Amino acid sequence: MNRIEEIQKIVEERIEKEIISLEERSPNHLYAPIAYALRNGGKRFRPRLFLMAMEMFSSITPEGIDAALGMEVFHNFTLLHDDIMDDADLRRGKDTVHKKYDENTAILSGDAMMICAYQYFHKLSPEVQAKVVPVFTQTALEVCEGQQYDMDFEQQDDVEVAAYLEMIRLKTAVLLAASLKIGALVAGASDKDADLIYDFGIQVGVSFQIQDDILDVYGNPKTFGKEIGGDIVANKKTYLLLQTLKDVSTEDKQSLLEWISKETFNREEKVNAVRAIYDHVDIRTKAEKLQQDYFDRALASLDQISVSSDKKEPLRNVALSLFKRDV
Amino acid sequence: MNRIEEIQKIVEERIEKEIISLEERSPNHLYAPIAYALRNGGKRFRPRLFLMAMEMFSSITPEGIDAALGMEVFHNFTLLHDDIMDDADLRRGKDTVHKKYDENTAILSGDAMMICAYQYFHKLSPEVQAKVVPVFTQTALEVCEGQQYDMDFEQQDDVEVAAYLEMIRLKTAVLLAASLKIGALVAGASDKDADLIYDFGIQVGVSFQIQDDILDVYGNPKTFGKEIGGDIVANKKTYLLLQTLKDVSTEDKQSLLEWISKETFNREEKVNAVRAIYDHVDIRTKAEKLQQDYFDRALASLDQISVSSDKKEPLRNVALSLFKRDV
Repeated sequence: MNRIEEIQKIVEERIEKEIISLEERSPNHLYAPIAYALRNGGKRFRPRLFLMAMEMFSSITPEGIDAALGMEVFHNFTLLHDDIMDDADLRRGKDTVHKKYDENTAILSGDAMMICAYQYFHKLSPEVQAKVVPVFTQTALEVCEGQQYDMDFEQQDDVEVAAYLEMIRLKTAVLLAASLKIGALVAGASDKDADLIYDFGIQVGVSFQIQDDILDVYGNPKTFGKEIGGDIVANKKTYLLLQTLKDVSTEDKQSLLEWISKETFNREEKVNAVRAIYDHVDIRTKAEKLQQDYFDRALASLDQISVSSDKKEPLRNVALSLFKRDV
Repeated sequence: MNRIEEIQKIVEERIEKEIISLEERSPNHLYAPIAYALRNGGKRFRPRLFLMAMEMFSSITPEGIDAALGMEVFHNFTLLHDDIMDDADLRRGKDTVHKKYDENTAILSGDAMMICAYQYFHKLSPEVQAKVVPVFTQTALEVCEGQQYDMDFEQQDDVEVAAYLEMIRLKTAVLLAASLKIGALVAGASDKDADLIYDFGIQVGVSFQIQDDILDVYGNPKTFGKEIGGDIVANKKTYLLLQTLKDVSTEDKQSLLEWISKETFNREEKVNAVRAIYDHVDIRTKAEKLQQDYFDRALASLDQISVSSDKKEPLRNVALSLFKRDV
C-alpha cells in the first residue's frame, strides 16, 4: 500500500467509526439521516487533502484526523441541503435524504450535521482553534454564497464570465483550499505557507471545474461516467456557454439563443448544433488555455511553499492526476 | 433609564447595526432574508441575559456584545427553519421568510445565518473562544435534538412526563442557559460559577415553559395575548395533558381520549370539557407546584454563585418577573 492509499484508509476508518457512533446517538430520527448521508460517500477528497497538507508540514495526529472529518461532514451537509433545493431524487445512485426520509428530516438533520462539523475542531489547542475555526466559518459562508450565486444565475440572462468564475471559486474551490489550509495550520505551517497552499487549492479547484465543463461537451463517452452534453441540454451557464455568447457571430448567437429557448428538441440534434457553434469560436482551445492558466498558477503557488520539493510531490501528483482526466 | 433598559438599548443598537450591514452584503438574495428575519425581533431575551451575566462578573465589552449577538442570530435561525418545518405563514404578525421569499431561500439563508452566528465569537481571545465555542456548538446541537423530540412526540401516543420535560429543556432552556454561561465565561467567571449560572438558566427556562402550559389553559384571556385553550384544541402534549393522562380515572381518560381523537368539534366545548377533566385531577396545582420547584432550584443555584448579593439582584428580578406572569 502506498502512502496515498494509507491516507485513504485512515480517512475511511475514521469516517466508519463516526458513522457507527452517529447511528447510536439519540434522537435516532435526527442522527440516523446524518449517518446515512455520510455513508453515501464519494472520494473523501477533502479530508484526504487535509491529511496530505498535514504531512507536508509535519505529520498526521488524531486531532488532525478529527478536524479533517469536520471538513467531510460539512461537505456532505452541503450536498444534503442542496439536494432538497434541487429536488434531486438520487445522490451517487442512492435515494437522497429527503426522499428516503422526508423534507423536514432533511432540513433538521442537515442543520445538526453542520453544527456537528464544528465539534470535530474542539480537540485542537486553543491557539490552533482560534486560527482555524474562523477559516472554517468563513469558508462555510462562502460555500453558501456560491450556492446562492449559482441559483441566481439560473434566473439571470446576462451572467459575466468573471461572475461565473467567482461562483465556482466559492461553490467548489474554497472548501478544497480550506481543507489544505487548515490541515497546514494544524500541522504548524506558517501563515504565509498556509496562504500559499490555500491558493494552490483555489487554482486547482477552479481548474478542475473548468475541466468538468469541457468534459461535458468534449469528453470521451466511454470514460466520462455521465452522458455527454448534459450541460448543453440543461442550458447550464458554464464557461463554454458564457464565453461563446460573448465571442460568437451575430448569426450564430441568434441560433444559439434559439436552441436555449426551445422547450422541445431532439437531444442529439441540440448537442451537435451547440457544439458546432462552440467550435466556430474555438471554445475548447480557449477553455483549455484557461484551465491551464489556473493549473500553472496552482503549481507556482505550490513551488513557493517553504518545504523541500519531495514533501510537495504527493500534492503535485494529485493535481496532475486531476488535470489529466480523459478529455 | 435604568440599567435593564440601558442593556436593552445596547442590544437593540448592535442588532440594528448588524441588520444594516447584512442588507449591504452580497449576494443580496442570501443576506437580505437574514436581515429580514433578524429585524422581526421579539424581546432579544438571550443577548440581554448574556450581557447581564457579563455585568454580574465584570463589565460589558464590545467583544462580549458581539458574542451576545451570536446567540440572538442563532435563535432567529432556529425560528426561521422551524417555520419551514411547521409550514407557518406568520411569525410575530409578519410573513415568515419562506412565505415572503421562497422555501429554497429560507433553507439556504437559514444555513448561512447559522454559520454567521459563529462569526460573532471570533473576536474573543483564543483561550475564551476555546472555552465558549464548544459550549455554543453543544447547545446548538441540543436545540436541534429538542426540535426533533418535539416532532417525534407529535407522532407518538405514549410520551412520558420526564421525556417531555427533557424535550423542553433542550428546545427552550439550554439556549437561555448557554447565553448566561457564555456571558459569564467571557466576563472571566470561574467554571464553577459558569455552571451555576447555566443551571439557573435551565431551571428558569423549564419553569417558564411549564408556566406557558398553565397559562394556555388557566390564563387571563385579557392579558395572555393568544386565545386561551390553543394547546387543548391542537392536542398538544403539554405537561398538563401528559400528567393528567397518568393520574385520571378510567372514565375520564376515556372521555379525554375521545376529545383528542375528534376531528370536528366546537372549540369552546372541547376546551371546557378538557379543562373540567384537568380540574378533576387538580392538574393546575400540580403544574404550579412543579413550576415552583424549578423556580426554587433556579434561585438556589443563583444563591451559590460567588459574587455579592447585589450583583445577583438584576437576574433575580428577571426571574421573578417571568415567574409572576398573569395566571
